[in-house]
Amino acid sequence: MSRTDELYSSLTQLLREAAVLSSCGSVLSWDEQTYMPANGAGHRAEQLGLLAGIAHERATSPRIGELLSELEQQTDLGDADSDRAVNVREARRTFDRQTKLPRRLVEELSRTTTMSQQAWVGAREDADFTAFLPWLEKMIGLKREEAQAVGYGAGVPYDALLDDYEPGMTAAEIERVFSPLRDELVKLVAAIQHSSRRPEVEILSRHYPKTPQIVLAEGASKAIGFNFDAGRIDESAHPFCSGFGPGDCRLTTRYNDHHFNSAFFGVMHESGHGIYDQGLPGDSFGLGIGQATSLGIHESQSRLWENFVGRSRSFWRYLFPTAQIGFPKALGDVPMDDFYFAINDVRPSLIRVEADEVTYNLHIMLRFEIEQQLISGAMQPADVPAAWNEKVMKYFGLTVPSDANGCLQDIHWSAGLLGYFPTYALGNMYAAQFYIAAQRDLGDLDDQFSRGVFRPLKEWLNEKIHRHGKRYSAKRLVEVVTGESLSHGPLITHLRTKYSELYGL
Amino acid sequence: MSRTDELYSSLTQLLREAAVLSSCGSVLSWDEQTYMPANGAGHRAEQLGLLAGIAHERATSPRIGELLSELEQQTDLGDADSDRAVNVREARRTFDRQTKLPRRLVEELSRTTTMSQQAWVGAREDADFTAFLPWLEKMIGLKREEAQAVGYGAGVPYDALLDDYEPGMTAAEIERVFSPLRDELVKLVAAIQHSSRRPEVEILSRHYPKTPQIVLAEGASKAIGFNFDAGRIDESAHPFCSGFGPGDCRLTTRYNDHHFNSAFFGVMHESGHGIYDQGLPGDSFGLGIGQATSLGIHESQSRLWENFVGRSRSFWRYLFPTAQIGFPKALGDVPMDDFYFAINDVRPSLIRVEADEVTYNLHIMLRFEIEQQLISGAMQPADVPAAWNEKVMKYFGLTVPSDANGCLQDIHWSAGLLGYFPTYALGNMYAAQFYIAAQRDLGDLDDQFSRGVFRPLKEWLNEKIHRHGKRYSAKRLVEVVTGESLSHGPLITHLRTKYSELYGL
Repeated sequence: MSRTDELYSSLTQLLREAAVLSSCGSVLSWDEQTYMPANGAGHRAEQLGLLAGIAHERATSPRIGELLSELEQQTDLGDADSDRAVNVREARRTFDRQTKLPRRLVEELSRTTTMSQQAWVGAREDADFTAFLPWLEKMIGLKREEAQAVGYGAGVPYDALLDDYEPGMTAAEIERVFSPLRDELVKLVAAIQHSSRRPEVEILSRHYPKTPQIVLAEGASKAIGFNFDAGRIDESAHPFCSGFGPGDCRLTTRYNDHHFNSAFFGVMHESGHGIYDQGLPGDSFGLGIGQATSLGIHESQSRLWENFVGRSRSFWRYLFPTAQIGFPKALGDVPMDDFYFAINDVRPSLIRVEADEVTYNLHIMLRFEIEQQLISGAMQPADVPAAWNEKVMKYFGLTVPSDANGCLQDIHWSAGLLGYFPTYALGNMYAAQFYIAAQRDLGDLDDQFSRGVFRPLKEWLNEKIHRHGKRYSAKRLVEVVTGESLSHGPLITHLRTKYSELYGL
Repeated sequence: MSRTDELYSSLTQLLREAAVLSSCGSVLSWDEQTYMPANGAGHRAEQLGLLAGIAHERATSPRIGELLSELEQQTDLGDADSDRAVNVREARRTFDRQTKLPRRLVEELSRTTTMSQQAWVGAREDADFTAFLPWLEKMIGLKREEAQAVGYGAGVPYDALLDDYEPGMTAAEIERVFSPLRDELVKLVAAIQHSSRRPEVEILSRHYPKTPQIVLAEGASKAIGFNFDAGRIDESAHPFCSGFGPGDCRLTTRYNDHHFNSAFFGVMHESGHGIYDQGLPGDSFGLGIGQATSLGIHESQSRLWENFVGRSRSFWRYLFPTAQIGFPKALGDVPMDDFYFAINDVRPSLIRVEADEVTYNLHIMLRFEIEQQLISGAMQPADVPAAWNEKVMKYFGLTVPSDANGCLQDIHWSAGLLGYFPTYALGNMYAAQFYIAAQRDLGDLDDQFSRGVFRPLKEWLNEKIHRHGKRYSAKRLVEVVTGESLSHGPLITHLRTKYSELYGL
C-alpha cells in the first residue's frame, strides 16, 4: 500500500462515517414528515439536533484537514477526473466551506432558522408580512455574514450562497441565460393568452379516488425506472425525495381526490430525483463520486421525467388507456387529446408550486432578482412586498391580493435557502439540453414512450449523468454530455414547439 | 448551585445524550421492520452499527465513571427512593455492567449474534438442529464468559444474565414460584383436557377483512388508553413495541384475514407495553426514573391488558356488538358466549407464541429449565433437542415431530437472549397480583369494562407503576403496590376460576 493509498483510505473512512451518521438524520426527518405522531416533535428535534452536531463535528475534524493537506501534496492521486482526485477535491470543498463558518454563526443560523420558519408559518396564515419582517432581516443579515465568511470570487456575495447549491455557478452566468429566456417567455405567455383555444381543465378536478391514484402513480414510477426494491413512496404534506444511502431512496407525495395533477406529476417529479439517487455509485457513498453534482442537475432529472416525458403526448398514448380503466367515471368519455391539453394548461398565476411548465420559470426569475438585491443590500427586506407585487404585475399582469399569495408563499427565505431558487430554472434548461442529446443518441423517444419503453432513456441518464456523481460540475457536465454550454435555447424551443401546436400559435 | 447539583446536572446531561443517540437507533430499527425496502438492509446495518458504537462509547465514557464516584460521596443526594438517588443508582448499575464487559467480548457477541441469527433462520427452515449447533455452542460459551465478567452473587452464573432483564431477580427466587405453579398448571391442563366441553374455534378462522380488523384493533387500543397523539400502530412481520422517547411510542402488529386473534390480541398486548411506555415520566428520559423497571413488569402490563382485560367476558360485553358490525359475515350469527369461549380455547400445543393463557407458562418453564442447565454446564448444547422433546411430552403429552416446531422455534438463544424467557411468566404472575390490587382499590372492574370504562384502571397503573420508572425493583414494586411479595397464587386462582367456569370443571 502506497502512502497515498493509506492517506486516501483513512480519509474515505472518516468521510463515509460522517455521511452514514448524517444519513441517520435523513431517516428521522423522513419519519418526522410521514409517520411521526404529533407529540413526538420535541424529542425528534433533540434527536436531530444531536445527530447534526455529531455529524458536523466529524465532518470538520482537524484530522480530515490534515489528511487532505497531505494528500494534496501527493503526485500519484490520478488525473483530475479520476475517482480519487474527484473525491479529494470534493472533500476539500466541503471541508473548507464547513470550517470557514465560525461556530457562533452556524449555531445562530440554526437557531434563527427554526424560529424564523415558525414565524413564517404564522405570518403566512395571517397574511402579515410585518410579523415576518424582523426574521427576514435577521436571516438576510446572517446569510450576508455567511457569504463573507465563505468568500467569493467576482465581488458578488450572492455567488457564495449560490455556490452551496450549484457549485461553480455565478449570478452573472445565470443572468446571461435568464435574460433572453425571460424575454422569450414573456412573449410566449402573451401569445398563449391571446389564443382563443383553452383546455377543459375541469376534467382534472373530477373525482379521482385515492386507491387507483396510488396504483397509477406507482405504476408509472416503476415503468420509468424507479426501483421499488430500493425505495418506496409514502405520503407527506410537502412532497420530497430523500436518499438514505445505497439501496434506500424514499419519495413522498400527497393525494387529492379532486385534483389529478397533484399526486401524479408529483410522483413523476420525485421519481426523477429518485432515479438519479438510485443511479449514484453506492460504493462511493459519502464521497464526491457518490453524490449528486448540483441541485440544478438534480432538478433537471425530476423535470425531465415530469415534463419532457410525463407531459408529452406520446407518454399518454401509452398510459391513457390505463388511466381510463382506473378512473372510468372521470376519464371514461374523455378523448386523449383533451386530457393531454388539460395537463398542459398554461395560465399566469400567483403560486409558484402550481405553475405550469411555461410560466414557472418567470416565478423563479422574480425571486432570483429580489434575493440578489437583498444580499447585495440594494433592496431592504421591508421593500420586498412592493417589489414582488410590481414584478408579478410586470410578468403576469396580475395583482397580488395578499402577501400570503405573494412574497410569503415560499418557505425558502425563512429557512435560509437563499441562492436556491435559480436551481429550479437551471434544472429546466439542463433538462431540455439533455433531452435533445438523448434524442440524438437514442432515436425517436416519442415512439419509445408511446410503447411504454423508458429503459433506453433511463440507462442513458445513468450512464451519462448519474454514475459520475460530482466528477464534473454542472457546467462541465452539460458540456461533456451535450457538447454545448448552458443555454436557454433548447428549453425555449421545446416550449415554443409544444405550445404553438396546442394553442395554435 | 451546590456541588451535588453541579455533578448531578453534568451526569444527567451525559446520560440523556447517550439515550437520545440510542433512541435514534430505535427509529431506524422500527423503520427496518416496517417500511424499509429490501435493498436498504446493508446500509441500515452500517447506520445501526455506527450509532450503537457511538452510543456505547458515550455511555461508557470515563467522565461518567468520575461523576458517579464523586456523586456517591455526596451526603445530600436525597433518600434512597428519591429521583436523584434512583437515577444515580441506576446510572451506576448500567455503567458497571457496560464497563465490566471487555471490548473484545462485546464485539464478539455482536458479531456472533448477527451470524448466529442468520444460521438459526436457515436451520429452522430446514429443521436442521445440527446446522445451528455450532452457533449455539459458541453463544453459550460467550454468555458464560459474559456472566463471569459481570459477576454474580450466589454462585449461579445464570443470575448474572437474568439480572440484565429482571434486575435483582435470581433463578432460585423464580424456581420458588415456578415450582408450585408448574404443579398446579399441569393439573389444570389435565382437567381441561378431560372436560367434554370444547369451544367452536372455527369461528375465529372465518374471513376477517383487514380494514375492519384495523378499525376494531385501533379502536380497542384507543379505548384502553393508548394515546395516538403520542404513538401509532404499523405492520411488521413480528409484532413489537418500541418507545422512541417522550411523546412517541410505536406499536406493530400483523393482520391475517383468516385468524381473528393474531392482530387483535397482538394489538391489545403491544398496547399494554405502549401504555407503560407512555406513562413513564418524559422529563426523566434517559434516567432511571424514566425507564421501565424490568422486562417482567413490562410484560405484566401487556398481559394484563391482553388477558385480564382483553380475554374477559366483561370486555366483550362492551366490544362484541362493535365486532359484529365490523364482521357481519363472520360474527353476525355468533352468540357472544361462544365467541368468548373460542378466544379462551385451551389446548396443549407445540408453539409458544400461539399458546393460550394456561399452557403458555409451561412453555416458559421448559425453556427456563434448559437454559439454566446450559449456562451452568449441566447440559451440553448437543443434548437440547432430546431434553426439549422429553419435556414437551411430560408437560403436554405431545410428541415433537420436528425441531422446527421444537427447540428451533424461538429466536432468543440465537440472539443471545439467555435469561429472558422467565420474564414472560413472571409478567403473568405480576399481572395477576396487580389485577387483584386494582380490583381492591377500584371496585368492580368487570362492571367498568362492560361499560367500556378503562380509565380508572389505566390511571391506577400510571399512578402505581408507570410513573415510578426504576424507582423500585420489580420485586419491591410488587410489594409496594400489592402488599404481597411475588407469588404464583393470584395467577393460578385467576386461571382456575376462569377456566373452571368455561370448561365446567
